[in-house]
Amino acid sequence: MASNILLVDQELLFKLEFLRLLSTRENATLGEIAGELGVDESTVLDLYNKIRQNYMISISREMITWHYGDNPARIKPWGWSYTYRILAGSTMVVAKHLNPWSIVVTEYQLRSYGRHGKQWISNLGGLWTTFKIEVDPNTTYLLAMAIPVVIARFLREKHNLNVGIKWPNDIVYKSKKLAGFLIEVEALLNRIIAYIGIGINVNNEPPLETATSLKNELGKLIPRNSLIGYIAGYISKIDEITRSPGKIHAEYMDLLETLGRRVKAELISGGVVTGLARTITESGELVVESETGSFKLRSAEVLELRYID
Amino acid sequence: MASNILLVDQELLFKLEFLRLLSTRENATLGEIAGELGVDESTVLDLYNKIRQNYMISISREMITWHYGDNPARIKPWGWSYTYRILAGSTMVVAKHLNPWSIVVTEYQLRSYGRHGKQWISNLGGLWTTFKIEVDPNTTYLLAMAIPVVIARFLREKHNLNVGIKWPNDIVYKSKKLAGFLIEVEALLNRIIAYIGIGINVNNEPPLETATSLKNELGKLIPRNSLIGYIAGYISKIDEITRSPGKIHAEYMDLLETLGRRVKAELISGGVVTGLARTITESGELVVESETGSFKLRSAEVLELRYID
Repeated sequence: MASNILLVDQELLFKLEFLRLLSTRENATLGEIAGELGVDESTVLDLYNKIRQNYMISISREMITWHYGDNPARIKPWGWSYTYRILAGSTMVVAKHLNPWSIVVTEYQLRSYGRHGKQWISNLGGLWTTFKIEVDPNTTYLLAMAIPVVIARFLREKHNLNVGIKWPNDIVYKSKKLAGFLIEVEALLNRIIAYIGIGINVNNEPPLETATSLKNELGKLIPRNSLIGYIAGYISKIDEITRSPGKIHAEYMDLLETLGRRVKAELISGGVVTGLARTITESGELVVESETGSFKLRSAEVLELRYID
Repeated sequence: MASNILLVDQELLFKLEFLRLLSTRENATLGEIAGELGVDESTVLDLYNKIRQNYMISISREMITWHYGDNPARIKPWGWSYTYRILAGSTMVVAKHLNPWSIVVTEYQLRSYGRHGKQWISNLGGLWTTFKIEVDPNTTYLLAMAIPVVIARFLREKHNLNVGIKWPNDIVYKSKKLAGFLIEVEALLNRIIAYIGIGINVNNEPPLETATSLKNELGKLIPRNSLIGYIAGYISKIDEITRSPGKIHAEYMDLLETLGRRVKAELISGGVVTGLARTITESGELVVESETGSFKLRSAEVLELRYID
């Protein structure tokens, strides 16, 4: 654990308790919540007004309800072991302790991380999840293309958002980050266990200037459970899907907004590659044409990719 | 709710989750806790080492146990409705929503308050509790003397700590505050409902320079459940006890370290009374002899009492 002290607003503790309470009930009165939290009803109302900025909760006759479609405690994706936590260090680490074909969803991650351990901010209202699956060793590499494709497709089809993919696996809208992915694999004898970490800025406040959220772009709150269900349904069929690698590659290329642009890639090694993003190899590498020649960049080698045109 | 932002170390959220988890189990392995919290085992160990500064938890063969006598979830005081919360705004407010003869215990209060709404810091390891009872209207005034007496007696008899009472109702040891009380009453038809808020610095870090804790004074952690049980047993008999007001008054006077000292009382009204603390009336008022005459001070009138000798 980092020894530096990370501070949060104390009110976050109330918000998490509020969600914890609502997640387990059909609804609760202001008085019930006040009694559980140990605050007066006006404070409950104040918390309600803040929480509803990021959650589909409503009040009617002093009764507060969390919309079924947005309360992750309400679903049980078929064929999956499903774990919902109000709070977690990281869903990736929770998943390490579970069997394959598990889904972990949390409201708040205290130690979330992105590719190469980069900070990933998971604030209230987003979708922070890890899918732990067992995959065919020969097609594992396809996950990094398949996952952004399915999310992008969902957002385009269900929400009419003209999103694109920024290599290797960010979902962007108008150049702002909407979602990110992190895929970790573990070889276990002849099996491959994959951890698919997905972070989507759904109803949370965009955590950075360079990010946006579905709420911001669509001007309304989006029920997260349909998103969880859609991704779970897709990943359930991953074995079948990865039998058509050419199709995944083509779909990925279609959605990729990186090609044809001038990019600057900072490598893990400390080096930098600058040039034109030309194409994506079948295994997902980015081919960059620089003045000194052509480079094939693997996602694992690249710390940060920036557009410079 | 105050609009100012109160910040806490994010690690507090992990500590509370850790306690929440342990409170419900006989014990848990490092791996189980790691999986629940979503952090690696070294982080669990790091948290364990921090938490055991303030809680009676131990580790043996990677199995962490919260000592039965210190885990408030483990007790059920006879004849009481008992509510244990990891986190609460204030136990006083939780109790408002419960029936008389309820006990509320929490590990952390986000909005705790003392007499006259003064801040009361409730950090990890202390005993923060409210007893809600029904009392005889004629003897309600005796609670303010009876409660400090019973706590002082417990600390003297069970822990050989030569504590005293500072008027109106602080328990002090070597001039440092060990415990404080807050009594609120509610008239309900011909019944009086009393909320007895008790805060004891047991195994927590003393929150202020002017405070100390049992841990600090005794050099070891003290199991809190015996304290809860002792107070509950005493308050159960409050009707019987208050039949001897003279005895309570005498015991209170015996333990009071305020008499014979020069004091400065800041009044709610804005006024100040300075003089010699002479005696306590039968109803608990402090009699102060000043140069301009003799004053009877009621606890409710006094914001702060300071010794000036």
